[in-house]
Amino acid sequence: MKIALAQLNYHIGNLDSNANKIIESIEKAKQNNIDLIVFSELSVSGYSPLDMLEHKDFITDCELHIKKITEHTEGIATIIGAPTINPNPKGKNLYNSGIFISDKKILKTFNKTLLPTYDIFDEYRHFEPNEIFELIEYKGSKIAVTICEDLWDEQRTYGNFDKEILYKNNPLQYLSKLNPDFVVNISASPYSYNQASNRKEILINNAKKYNLPIVYVNQTGANTDLIFDGGSLIINKKGETVLEAKYFEEDFQIFDTDEINIKSPIIAKETNKYKNIYKALVIGIKDYFTKSGFSKAVLGLSGGVDSALTLAIAVEALGSENVAALLMPTTYSSDHSIDDAIDMAKRCNIKYHIVNIEEMRLKFEDTMSDIFAGTEQGITEENIQARLRGSILMSYSNKFGHILLNTSNKSEAAVGYSTLYGDMNGALSVLGDVYKTDVYKLCHYINDNVADIIPKNTITKPPSAELRPDQKDNDSLPEYDTLDTILFSYIEQKMSASEIEKIVPKRKTIKFILDLVNKTEYKRFQSPPILRISSKAFGFGRRMPIVAKF
Amino acid sequence: MKIALAQLNYHIGNLDSNANKIIESIEKAKQNNIDLIVFSELSVSGYSPLDMLEHKDFITDCELHIKKITEHTEGIATIIGAPTINPNPKGKNLYNSGIFISDKKILKTFNKTLLPTYDIFDEYRHFEPNEIFELIEYKGSKIAVTICEDLWDEQRTYGNFDKEILYKNNPLQYLSKLNPDFVVNISASPYSYNQASNRKEILINNAKKYNLPIVYVNQTGANTDLIFDGGSLIINKKGETVLEAKYFEEDFQIFDTDEINIKSPIIAKETNKYKNIYKALVIGIKDYFTKSGFSKAVLGLSGGVDSALTLAIAVEALGSENVAALLMPTTYSSDHSIDDAIDMAKRCNIKYHIVNIEEMRLKFEDTMSDIFAGTEQGITEENIQARLRGSILMSYSNKFGHILLNTSNKSEAAVGYSTLYGDMNGALSVLGDVYKTDVYKLCHYINDNVADIIPKNTITKPPSAELRPDQKDNDSLPEYDTLDTILFSYIEQKMSASEIEKIVPKRKTIKFILDLVNKTEYKRFQSPPILRISSKAFGFGRRMPIVAKF
Repeated sequence: MKIALAQLNYHIGNLDSNANKIIESIEKAKQNNIDLIVFSELSVSGYSPLDMLEHKDFITDCELHIKKITEHTEGIATIIGAPTINPNPKGKNLYNSGIFISDKKILKTFNKTLLPTYDIFDEYRHFEPNEIFELIEYKGSKIAVTICEDLWDEQRTYGNFDKEILYKNNPLQYLSKLNPDFVVNISASPYSYNQASNRKEILINNAKKYNLPIVYVNQTGANTDLIFDGGSLIINKKGETVLEAKYFEEDFQIFDTDEINIKSPIIAKETNKYKNIYKALVIGIKDYFTKSGFSKAVLGLSGGVDSALTLAIAVEALGSENVAALLMPTTYSSDHSIDDAIDMAKRCNIKYHIVNIEEMRLKFEDTMSDIFAGTEQGITEENIQARLRGSILMSYSNKFGHILLNTSNKSEAAVGYSTLYGDMNGALSVLGDVYKTDVYKLCHYINDNVADIIPKNTITKPPSAELRPDQKDNDSLPEYDTLDTILFSYIEQKMSASEIEKIVPKRKTIKFILDLVNKTEYKRFQSPPILRISSKAFGFGRRMPIVAKF
Repeated sequence: MKIALAQLNYHIGNLDSNANKIIESIEKAKQNNIDLIVFSELSVSGYSPLDMLEHKDFITDCELHIKKITEHTEGIATIIGAPTINPNPKGKNLYNSGIFISDKKILKTFNKTLLPTYDIFDEYRHFEPNEIFELIEYKGSKIAVTICEDLWDEQRTYGNFDKEILYKNNPLQYLSKLNPDFVVNISASPYSYNQASNRKEILINNAKKYNLPIVYVNQTGANTDLIFDGGSLIINKKGETVLEAKYFEEDFQIFDTDEINIKSPIIAKETNKYKNIYKALVIGIKDYFTKSGFSKAVLGLSGGVDSALTLAIAVEALGSENVAALLMPTTYSSDHSIDDAIDMAKRCNIKYHIVNIEEMRLKFEDTMSDIFAGTEQGITEENIQARLRGSILMSYSNKFGHILLNTSNKSEAAVGYSTLYGDMNGALSVLGDVYKTDVYKLCHYINDNVADIIPKNTITKPPSAELRPDQKDNDSLPEYDTLDTILFSYIEQKMSASEIEKIVPKRKTIKFILDLVNKTEYKRFQSPPILRISSKAFGFGRRMPIVAKF
């Protein structure tokens, strides 16, 4: 059986666009005499429509688009992903379905069994789990259709609990007993820098365990914070990879299943953590803009490493003609900061403006002088600088329709070393899931592999917010390698303070840092959406109470 | 059997405080010769600890506090609520449990069966559902212990889907077959203005259906956005109310179960929608401050109705000595605005300052004049005013440790008529779940029933943002009664545009408004937490994609 893997970039709720993309691929497949074309999970709606799924008219609209796609399936079998109505009188409204269509008819609807409801996933909020396990026979092949998490039955639970396995059910165990010729898995598997290798491992293990080939179709592109990396796969029953689609871009791959256990395994695509993070962030920005109908970005360029890296990524995503930067020095800004920022802007060939905020800062302080009379200068005055900059950037954004990119990194966001309504402003946080130590590594990756664009001085000088004279980040924080180790252990690994102490033997520092993380939940609650590149990003996937004692 | 209903105000994660409160009530119960004292759902941890539940050390800490409580149960039975570890090798890490303790021993742990995973609830994210149904026999009484949603088996699904019942399971059906003498239900039932009557209906229907008395213990107090209204109940097997605890405050009620079917039913407490919303918002502010360790608030007072109402509520919650207001006129502010604002501040007997932002506004525009040369004045300049005000309020907050209260209402938030990093600033949104039409009704309720504190002119004048000359809200929006009907139908009732048209026969207006709602998700994503008083508040309970086509 000749199959096509259609790895596409979908847009949530943009049903016309999604259906048209699907139909285009079906037509292309017909020209290639394909028997079966496979699209990814929720390909009709985009992943995830979240609470749009509670609107009946959205589901009705999905049904209309499924019908439209169905009209194009003469002579070809097609598997698409869509929400479908649960016809049972009790239970959730919907199923997360894989719909098998051929010759203008829906032959069978397969529903997802394992519904991820952790981290960024909320599937049990909307979907009823499947309990029926059947195959479909098409052109002499018996096919098991599964949906994403259905193959992740060995998913581990979070935290250091003794128990390890999250799910009690195991779809492939049931399906394998029905002797399928191969398994199809349609996915919406969000990128994080370890996900591609985890995914391969899961697929390979399943193929070997059940002695079954797996055809895996993922999607690509970004929807706000979530980035999909593609990398669709075909694994033979020995667990060898016989096809690997492109990463971070659309792809259309053809494979004859008759050859699935004959064809020699291919060499897996090289993976470089920083190359992938870079690609992910570029696609994250690009799709945020494209799918929102915007093309131009603005950011504040300080001469520091975070804004320089954000700019480099933005220029790659949007083109230098579409990115503008504002340099907003005060009296506390060092000369090298302005020079480095100008240098960076020139290297990127972007439009930039220098806006001296000194007079505004003084006018602000003057306006408040009666009320603030007798108080000492301190954090308030530092925040005023940050908020004036934030307001200037927003005024530029409002005036010229440039979307403001936030330049904060994950280490800062974690400890709350940022000003709400100041440097926390922005429609999208590009580096909010990138620890400071990784910010440096990404800069090196770009300078070494993409273009030598980030000034050396920006990378080598000690990091500083420059909100008061001679301020340095490590005046009040540990060095970033120590800080990031503590943060990673706590946030990604959910370790306790005493467990972290076994790695970083600094009890007081650990307590100080964890307290900062917990006390600044209120700030992160108002953060822009953050492009997710790790297994635990701030935002939708990490839900902490605000008014709580930790 | 003599039982006590302990209706307390818990603080998430503050295990010492929660355990001490529980122990105090146990000691009080002992003095009253109580046989069984009942606390509410997750009383040890507070509701809901959200992803704190993924930290093993948090669970260990809960266990230590359960042990401490257990030590105080000599001669008395106690039911507390806490997360407990699921000992099975597969499934979620935890159960949401009701723990039955007596004579320093845990006699039985009951786990929650129906795990709400909709709106603000995420219970299936953390908890494994119970599948075992047993009673406990204590001092000759057979007791069925259930947890909150366990009695809501007829919960309906969202939206206008044909299917109505969300759950496939029904704990009381199993438990009633074991012939209990009465049912205990421990709850954390968040307030919304219809919830108390829904809750009574559910309890009464269950009592009648199974011919069983129900002892229902809810909690009170607020945790960030969620407000618990108390109102614990005892219903006899005929479905009559024989005990009703206080609303919006802690309570300790004693009842002899031998009298449960003898005692005459009581007259239900009167309910007034606006009285309850007012009480809820007061407790919402009070607990946000108390539980965060703050006492003082600041807000921007414009002379308009939203900030006046917020101030009235804040003064009731925190005391007039703890609330400060800033009046920040520009050249577009009308005289009556300043007069009304001063009038309101004086009526509330609070400290206020007038900060004229005109010079700063001009300095800001002057600073940007080169960059903005040749452009027209418009939204950008309106937003500059709002952002300067927001920055001034935050500088006051930073300088004096006053927490900024946001004064936006739900109608504004819905259509995005507010400025990010300007009037959207604040640690807590007081009115973000109150439609503008209800803002007026609340003002009347307060003036008529609490104190005549809100100036008549503030209530009667046409609403305006006063960001440009002669601006009125209805220049660009429909009248608020029409607007709020459309918004309620869409947001709370999830109706489609064509369904709304049957109520408000204005197709173009509906489309315009729904488009505004959907296009401004990005703003609400960065909104402060909003005190929830409706069945569908913006925030954690309404999860919409940002980059999506609606």
